[in-house]
Amino acid sequence: MPKPTVIDTEFCPIAKSADVMGDRWTLLILRELFFGVTRFEAIQVQTGARPQMLTDRLRRLQHMGVILRSPYQQAPVRHEYVLTDKGKDLFSVLYAMRNWAERWQRDEGTPLAITYTHRACGHDVGLETTCPNCGKILEYGDLKGTPSLHGQSARIAKTDAFNMR
Amino acid sequence: MPKPTVIDTEFCPIAKSADVMGDRWTLLILRELFFGVTRFEAIQVQTGARPQMLTDRLRRLQHMGVILRSPYQQAPVRHEYVLTDKGKDLFSVLYAMRNWAERWQRDEGTPLAITYTHRACGHDVGLETTCPNCGKILEYGDLKGTPSLHGQSARIAKTDAFNMR
Repeated sequence: MPKPTVIDTEFCPIAKSADVMGDRWTLLILRELFFGVTRFEAIQVQTGARPQMLTDRLRRLQHMGVILRSPYQQAPVRHEYVLTDKGKDLFSVLYAMRNWAERWQRDEGTPLAITYTHRACGHDVGLETTCPNCGKILEYGDLKGTPSLHGQSARIAKTDAFNMR
Repeated sequence: MPKPTVIDTEFCPIAKSADVMGDRWTLLILRELFFGVTRFEAIQVQTGARPQMLTDRLRRLQHMGVILRSPYQQAPVRHEYVLTDKGKDLFSVLYAMRNWAERWQRDEGTPLAITYTHRACGHDVGLETTCPNCGKILEYGDLKGTPSLHGQSARIAKTDAFNMR
C-alpha cells in the first residue's frame, strides 16, 4: 500500500471544517443566516428542520463561535441568531458551494436561483469569485442578490404552508 | 413573522451542494482524492471510515458524477477512484474550507498543515484564493503543497497503525 504523505484528521483543516459544516442542516441554517434570517421560527420554515434538530445545530454553531445568540425581546424573552466575524468568514465556503451547484447541478434552461451584482461597480458577477468587471475579490457584503421569480415564490409557499399547519 | 424573499431548498444551490458535501466522511474522502489517494484501502486508512461507510459514500459520489470508478488491476479486479471534471471543480469549496479552518480553528503557534506555493510564479499563497504575488485566481493544479512535519508524521502513523491491526 502506498504511504500517503500529508496530514492527519485531527491536524487537518478540512476535518476541522467538516466538524462544523459536514452536516446538511447546518449548511441550510448558515444559508439562512447569510440571507439575514435570524429568528428561530423563520429559519425553521425555510430549512424544514424540526425544532430539536435546529436547536441542536444552533447550539453547536454557538459553541464553535460561528454565531451569537442574543435577545431581541423581553417578556417573553426571544432570541435571534447572528453570524460572528468567524461565521461571516464562512461566506467563501458557501459562495463556492453555490457556484459549484449552479455550474453542475442546475437543470438546463433554469435561471440562476439568485443573480448577484457587485455593489461597488454594478456588474453581474456570474459564478465568479472575483468581479469579471473590476477584478476585486468578492467578499461577504460586496454582493447584491436578486432572486429569480421561481425561487422567490417557492420561499413564500413554504411560509404559507407553515402558517397553515 | 417576516416573509423571507429568496429561494427554496429544492431549487437552492446550497441545498444541492449540501446533498453532496453535507457529510463529514464525504469531505474527508474528497480531501484524499484531491491529494491523489485513489485506492479504497488507502482512503480508508487516512479517513478512518469503516468499509461500509466508505463504500456507501463512494457509490454516492459516483452516482452524482463527482468520481469515476475504474479498474487498475485484473484477477482479482481492483478499482481506483478518481475525480471527474465536476469533482475537480469542488476544489474551490475544499480550498475555502481549508483557508477558513487555518484562519479560525488553528492553535496559536501551530504551523499551517500544508503550505502552498503557486507553481507558475513560485510564490507562497498563504490563505488566499488569488496569488498574492501575481494575482492569478488559484485553481486546482495551480498549487504545490508542502506538508508540515507534524502532519506528515501523523499520516504515516495512521498507515502504521492500520498495518499492525
